[in-house]
Amino acid sequence: MVGGGNGAFIGAIHRAAAFMDNRIELVCGCFSANSEISMESGRSYFLPDNRIYSSYREMFEKEKQLPENERMDFVTIVTPNFLHFEPAMLALNNGFHVILDKPMVFSLDEAKQLKAKVEETGLTLALTHVYSGYPAIKEAKARIARGDFGKIRKVYVEYVQGWLSERIELQGGNNARWRTDPKRSGKAGAMGDIGTHAWHLAEYVTGAKISELCANVNTIVPGRLLDDDGAALLRFDNGATGVLIATQVATGEENVITIRIYGEKGGVEWKQMEPNTLWVRWGNGQPTEIIQVGSGYMSGLAKHNTRTPAGHPEGFIEAFANIYRNFALTVDAKLNNKISEPEWLDFPTVDDGLRAMQFIETIIEAGKNDNVKWLKWIE
Amino acid sequence: MVGGGNGAFIGAIHRAAAFMDNRIELVCGCFSANSEISMESGRSYFLPDNRIYSSYREMFEKEKQLPENERMDFVTIVTPNFLHFEPAMLALNNGFHVILDKPMVFSLDEAKQLKAKVEETGLTLALTHVYSGYPAIKEAKARIARGDFGKIRKVYVEYVQGWLSERIELQGGNNARWRTDPKRSGKAGAMGDIGTHAWHLAEYVTGAKISELCANVNTIVPGRLLDDDGAALLRFDNGATGVLIATQVATGEENVITIRIYGEKGGVEWKQMEPNTLWVRWGNGQPTEIIQVGSGYMSGLAKHNTRTPAGHPEGFIEAFANIYRNFALTVDAKLNNKISEPEWLDFPTVDDGLRAMQFIETIIEAGKNDNVKWLKWIE
Amino acid sequence: MVGGGNGAFIGAIHRAAAFMDNRIELVCGCFSANSEISMESGRSYFLPDNRIYSSYREMFEKEKQLPENERMDFVTIVTPNFLHFEPAMLALNNGFHVILDKPMVFSLDEAKQLKAKVEETGLTLALTHVYSGYPAIKEAKARIARGDFGKIRKVYVEYVQGWLSERIELQGGNNARWRTDPKRSGKAGAMGDIGTHAWHLAEYVTGAKISELCANVNTIVPGRLLDDDGAALLRFDNGATGVLIATQVATGEENVITIRIYGEKGGVEWKQMEPNTLWVRWGNGQPTEIIQVGSGYMSGLAKHNTRTPAGHPEGFIEAFANIYRNFALTVDAKLNNKISEPEWLDFPTVDDGLRAMQFIETIIEAGKNDNVKWLKWIE
Amino acid sequence: MVGGGNGAFIGAIHRAAAFMDNRIELVCGCFSANSEISMESGRSYFLPDNRIYSSYREMFEKEKQLPENERMDFVTIVTPNFLHFEPAMLALNNGFHVILDKPMVFSLDEAKQLKAKVEETGLTLALTHVYSGYPAIKEAKARIARGDFGKIRKVYVEYVQGWLSERIELQGGNNARWRTDPKRSGKAGAMGDIGTHAWHLAEYVTGAKISELCANVNTIVPGRLLDDDGAALLRFDNGATGVLIATQVATGEENVITIRIYGEKGGVEWKQMEPNTLWVRWGNGQPTEIIQVGSGYMSGLAKHNTRTPAGHPEGFIEAFANIYRNFALTVDAKLNNKISEPEWLDFPTVDDGLRAMQFIETIIEAGKNDNVKWLKWIE
Repeated sequence: MVGGGNGAFIGAIHRAAAFMDNRIELVCGCFSANSEISMESGRSYFLPDNRIYSSYREMFEKEKQLPENERMDFVTIVTPNFLHFEPAMLALNNGFHVILDKPMVFSLDEAKQLKAKVEETGLTLALTHVYSGYPAIKEAKARIARGDFGKIRKVYVEYVQGWLSERIELQGGNNARWRTDPKRSGKAGAMGDIGTHAWHLAEYVTGAKISELCANVNTIVPGRLLDDDGAALLRFDNGATGVLIATQVATGEENVITIRIYGEKGGVEWKQMEPNTLWVRWGNGQPTEIIQVGSGYMSGLAKHNTRTPAGHPEGFIEAFANIYRNFALTVDAKLNNKISEPEWLDFPTVDDGLRAMQFIETIIEAGKNDNVKWLKWIE
Repeated sequence: MVGGGNGAFIGAIHRAAAFMDNRIELVCGCFSANSEISMESGRSYFLPDNRIYSSYREMFEKEKQLPENERMDFVTIVTPNFLHFEPAMLALNNGFHVILDKPMVFSLDEAKQLKAKVEETGLTLALTHVYSGYPAIKEAKARIARGDFGKIRKVYVEYVQGWLSERIELQGGNNARWRTDPKRSGKAGAMGDIGTHAWHLAEYVTGAKISELCANVNTIVPGRLLDDDGAALLRFDNGATGVLIATQVATGEENVITIRIYGEKGGVEWKQMEPNTLWVRWGNGQPTEIIQVGSGYMSGLAKHNTRTPAGHPEGFIEAFANIYRNFALTVDAKLNNKISEPEWLDFPTVDDGLRAMQFIETIIEAGKNDNVKWLKWIE
Repeated sequence: MVGGGNGAFIGAIHRAAAFMDNRIELVCGCFSANSEISMESGRSYFLPDNRIYSSYREMFEKEKQLPENERMDFVTIVTPNFLHFEPAMLALNNGFHVILDKPMVFSLDEAKQLKAKVEETGLTLALTHVYSGYPAIKEAKARIARGDFGKIRKVYVEYVQGWLSERIELQGGNNARWRTDPKRSGKAGAMGDIGTHAWHLAEYVTGAKISELCANVNTIVPGRLLDDDGAALLRFDNGATGVLIATQVATGEENVITIRIYGEKGGVEWKQMEPNTLWVRWGNGQPTEIIQVGSGYMSGLAKHNTRTPAGHPEGFIEAFANIYRNFALTVDAKLNNKISEPEWLDFPTVDDGLRAMQFIETIIEAGKNDNVKWLKWIE
Repeated sequence: MVGGGNGAFIGAIHRAAAFMDNRIELVCGCFSANSEISMESGRSYFLPDNRIYSSYREMFEKEKQLPENERMDFVTIVTPNFLHFEPAMLALNNGFHVILDKPMVFSLDEAKQLKAKVEETGLTLALTHVYSGYPAIKEAKARIARGDFGKIRKVYVEYVQGWLSERIELQGGNNARWRTDPKRSGKAGAMGDIGTHAWHLAEYVTGAKISELCANVNTIVPGRLLDDDGAALLRFDNGATGVLIATQVATGEENVITIRIYGEKGGVEWKQMEPNTLWVRWGNGQPTEIIQVGSGYMSGLAKHNTRTPAGHPEGFIEAFANIYRNFALTVDAKLNNKISEPEWLDFPTVDDGLRAMQFIETIIEAGKNDNVKWLKWIE
């Protein structure tokens, strides 16, 4: 693991998600650029001192020299955005598979390089677009793919938060500080942090790609350097249209992610804060159905990503763990020359990462000035 | 009453709303262009034959000649859009106050003429933008007006239906037929029928005006002549931005109207299908509050428009009735030379009607072609 | 109307409910024992002075002498419980049909006398057990009656309020004062006021009768004279069992009425505060369905009691109005020697009123002492 | 681990919960009485063959002989009820701490013996009453303990399932088979399986003890040998009263656990299927508050048991993991002669297990015959 020292929110989530299925062990890490913090964190994670490193370069080099059954199989990188590219490239160059927190890298250019490197090395790179890991989202995807709702016409996706409605980056926590800092976050604030999640859900669930958008991207809180709010009208390559909303200034909202998709025959709705339920709607005046994760009628894709029976809620960490488990199954298959089951391959990859960077480019460009227009997706 | 013969949905609602508060009696009507249907309907409404007319011209002329304490005080017009203007003008010219179903008229030009006529005659014209009649909406308006949430930043409003997801206008019901027919509905379909409701709520609740928008307006169902779907990015004159969604092809949805508004300090959410509740959110990590209509803490504006204590739900007809009651109180004050209380004047007027027609002009123009742009509000 | 002067909550509801469908007009009333208040109230309801009475005796006598097409057809009695019996008997003796607020009378003995009188006179008496007037409740009843869920096994009904969690009867409002006063309310407090509603719903929806119960009835708030809380285990004559909860000391709750019924094959749930929705559940792991009032698939019984299409919420006043409308249709049929449609007869009658008094007798007796037992229904 | 071979539901949950916090490793196990299944399961859990045992006796003996830093520290027992006592006693006798699935043992007598053994050995025994592990439940407990709601008056707790509404024990799955078999489940069916959960929540959250109850316990599905349904009226030692419902025949319900508690000043509600939310209600007509797990305003007790920020849902496995983590912290403190923090000690122990067996004795006895009575808690 690179990053994720004591106190870092997302690092702790990664570890819980990784461990849950007893397929992944933490064997080493460089948990901070500060070697004392790295050592202290590693010890608190029950690592022996000799597997706690003070730089990721050192880690890759030393681990590579360990016997195969001892050294790490892959590395998880959970640093801020600007510190993704270099360790990821280095890991791949040293033969390690990689899990990266999203957005994948700092710029579109880095994304292209990383994709080339993944293809060159044949290694596996997973990206933790966690919301696509929820079993109910898998179920929605499976139902749309098998044509339950007919041709898809409308896609409404939103990610609504309120935690940046004041300029809290001037106060304590690093969470807000790096996300609102162009040097560490990249060219986008809210659009990169949460807009990419909304974008990913829309494309993942529908299987369609956004081809054009027009956008309004704002920096609402005075003094802030990056966008903290935006919305876009969407056109998809299958003819569907839609709306994407992403804001971090909806005062009082926590983490409201909602996706609603409507086809000719019916539609489906999902809300992240009640994640084990889908509302499935039908035309011709039929009743809406409440689909509960864990039920016997779930698709194979959803069942593969479910751990508990209906009525025993799974949450954010389990969604995260689904990415880890599928990644682990895939890597394990590679390591042991087995063939991956199709469900194992169902996790966000370098292609999603590249496309997320394109999304950021496109929406920031589209929202840049008053001359709003339908902007074609920037490749 | 003009229109609203047996079987017409909205006519029956108007009558129930009018009667509920014992301030309004049905004394006469021309319920259909077909005089037999008019007679039959009138009789079923317990009217004497001599107050059932076969044309509205006849009605206005005859009623005018009745003694003051016998003749109708005002007329409700509940015909399709293209049949609003002429009877309304005639009513005003004959000295009758008017209640019109929305959208007020067929075109912007008619709207301007009607406004001039209202001003000229000094009579009262009310428009049944019913959703602004809900007490919870009044409460949201009152709280925003008194500054509870600070400066308003974001407005998300949506009106999502699915009943036109198939081309049901080819089958039976007149409801779908006239709404999708440019000759009877005007230049807009969904934008006129439900987009205007969404627009009205946004401006009514916030007290701000949309100044610019860019839009995507679609005719989704093949063969249909008018728009059945759309969305717009919004800019308001107070600096807020937002999104408006209006669709009639969200298969399986009934009548989902939602408005969410966020200011610097907090925000408020309302859902028409649970109309007696507001969710009030606060910054600084305070808990969300569930505000229940009928509670002692409601504002004066909301209380004036509430009939039952908390926990005894009011609905669509009561919201409608609030417009009727306030209209009746206002007209009664005029008739009796009393001064209206401020709350009595709180109903949609010819100004809202004119602005609704401007909204239609603006969004249809904005959504017309691929050259999307920020279009200034068309006056 | 007897009672229901200005400011009385339930009187205003009765009038709105009565007027809504344009079948009932207020023609006279004795609105208060205080003749000034009665006069002032009647005038504010637009009655001529000669139809405003200062005693109900006077009203019955004078109205009886009016020509048939002028005099009142029926009387609504909305006084506190102890003032139901005498005016109701008098009305029946004078040939007037009656609508009574629940509970019907003060004691079981009065109930039996009243029932005998109704049978003797052949007149119609309706009781406003309003919650059975909701269209969703009609739908639940229709589905159970047609066997959708198989044999019914479990019935959970509850009526949970918090408004008496403090001793507010010591302060202002008459609402709390008479309800907690044995002289005006009868032998039960909460059990009579809201327990009877819960009981009625349970029997109305299932079509089964409670045959035995064991109960815990409490006076929670110190100093209060009547019960303000209770619960009972239930046995029904069809073999089902269940639980009834009725409390007025659930601090912070408004008017939470919930009924859940389960049969061999499925079940149904209704919540008064979202009254237009039923949740219908099925065995064998099928999805729960959200049944929306106003949908095309509703039963005839529900449709007859619905005024708006799906998604346009109806509320408490409409439920009330359904009792008034069905009563009016029935009385009208009697007056005009027509045959009532079965749906018209679907309103609570003197039989429900008698049974409610038996419920009060039974549960108060059952909850009286520490020697709890399965108490047979007291006839 | 004893039990929990491949395919066993609850064993997999125990492992995920144990691993999540990186404090617990699976080092050995006897996963089935069938040694082949045990071996196969252990291998699939990545154990070396020499730590996979074919009997728990063997396991305890062999593990005891391993060096301290290698041998297991504690054992988790996840077999059916009738196979809890013997391995638990043996584990304690051999110096191992124990985690047991609930209900703790087969009979009240066993429970008393086990408690004596725990006290004699000074070892730690935890019981997975998982629902008390949810952070929102911790929050409710903390708020009640600090007096937010004043004296507690009413407690409504229910556990409603539908999976046994048909006699599925005649078909496949072992889950239903052993639970409905008196030889493996004990003297109670539903009351032991889920009634104990409801009982535990009620006492855990309120801090009060049930002192008396009267009950209706039924076997609804013909042919079944144990109860599958019941309800009880409750009296608590602090003067509160309440209702407990536990049923497995509410056709179509999944896992509906709800607890509502009301005091003089306010109340709190929790629903297991939306586990990260509390509804907190207040007297004097104040708005209901929506309390979200992960918010800054949570109590220390809740924060200690929370892994994600507000809006990132936690679920059943995290609740389970809270018991494991607190147990692990406590055991670790014992092993290392540290003092446990008070929050670490917050998990169900042998005392809860004994009391659960008393609950089963009491409610089964109380519901046994028609002579229902207030039965004092059986010690």
